[in-house]
Amino acid sequence: MEDTDTAMSPANEPARPEKITIIVHSGDFDKIYSAFIIGNGALAMGMEASMYFTFWGLSRLKKGALDSGPLSKMHMLGLGKWMVKRRMKKANVVSLERLAQDYKELGGKIFACDMTMDIMGITKEQLRTDLIEEYCAVGTYINEARGSTVTLFI
Amino acid sequence: MEDTDTAMSPANEPARPEKITIIVHSGDFDKIYSAFIIGNGALAMGMEASMYFTFWGLSRLKKGALDSGPLSKMHMLGLGKWMVKRRMKKANVVSLERLAQDYKELGGKIFACDMTMDIMGITKEQLRTDLIEEYCAVGTYINEARGSTVTLFI
Amino acid sequence: MEDTDTAMSPANEPARPEKITIIVHSGDFDKIYSAFIIGNGALAMGMEASMYFTFWGLSRLKKGALDSGPLSKMHMLGLGKWMVKRRMKKANVVSLERLAQDYKELGGKIFACDMTMDIMGITKEQLRTDLIEEYCAVGTYINEARGSTVTLFI
Repeated sequence: MEDTDTAMSPANEPARPEKITIIVHSGDFDKIYSAFIIGNGALAMGMEASMYFTFWGLSRLKKGALDSGPLSKMHMLGLGKWMVKRRMKKANVVSLERLAQDYKELGGKIFACDMTMDIMGITKEQLRTDLIEEYCAVGTYINEARGSTVTLFI
Repeated sequence: MEDTDTAMSPANEPARPEKITIIVHSGDFDKIYSAFIIGNGALAMGMEASMYFTFWGLSRLKKGALDSGPLSKMHMLGLGKWMVKRRMKKANVVSLERLAQDYKELGGKIFACDMTMDIMGITKEQLRTDLIEEYCAVGTYINEARGSTVTLFI
Repeated sequence: MEDTDTAMSPANEPARPEKITIIVHSGDFDKIYSAFIIGNGALAMGMEASMYFTFWGLSRLKKGALDSGPLSKMHMLGLGKWMVKRRMKKANVVSLERLAQDYKELGGKIFACDMTMDIMGITKEQLRTDLIEEYCAVGTYINEARGSTVTLFI
């Protein structure tokens, strides 16, 4: 893996670290699930990872909201959220809480959009301060994103 | 193609400009809001910015639709769109109109997907020609995106 | 910033191929339409293309589901799905089936997320094996994405 890596940035470059930066705008269970799976996958493969939680995504970082909060109201209707949950259990798919913990342990960074906090009236006290690295504005995102190999808006 | 590639960033190239290219597919108020916040942030930090409006995103560029058009029908239900609007006012959050004006003044480019115009039966006369730079197809997007540091689909 | 940039593809590097990698998470007709239009556009312009179908996107790759399956339940409501379909016909817009066939013929790759298959209880027998290149996990996606010029989550 590291070989392919260094091949991308030549021998004389002092290792520009590969990074993935994800904006998590959606609060849908399945989308946040995908975001963490991708983030954890990148980290496990030696990349850095940053996730910016905004709007409905940030709402999910309220205390107690990660797994027990409102599931994807809209999109889960198609398949039935309980069916999905049951199948996830059967398939040994872990909870969002576990995915988020793994993400932090692997060195992933979580940023909270402070403008969203103003708009939605969310205070730091309501948020998962154990998961959040920094409360910041769009400038922080741009700086992370411009140095990233992979950028996604979820 | 490879020639164009290497021509894009050879050792002797005088500054390949950093760019962000965003496809705005959604017509949701909150998503278009995020798109402009990101675009304006990138421009303010010296990057170039291109936004491609397609489908529901393009519908929002109809005259009079940017702020008064249909708000995010689906996703705003979760929080209540009026609550969001009131809080945005309280938090001194500007309107989409203002964000779009700032985006243009900062040098951001807005492209309209002509295929969407055909599909949705939208004419140029119905659109905000003051904001739109060009009416074009996917090839224009690909050319902008391949030269971009950050690419998003919103 | 420009220095880091140019360091990414020095003159002596043997043509790092330009690639676009798209995660297709949504099952919405309009979004999958956009994904294929972008993928085909990139291929037509000499780029490589990879699409990762997950969750509702993967559901669309069930046999018979590409065009006749559930249309975008939510988002099409805004405009009326039949109006869109009629206009698409009038505008000579091709079907998803045709777009997918073109994509394959142009050399595009389609990957199926095996975790989604477990969660949603989807078997290979139910899927369009004629379109799918490989059944794989997030690691395969990361490897494709980190070598891509353009990355999108749709």
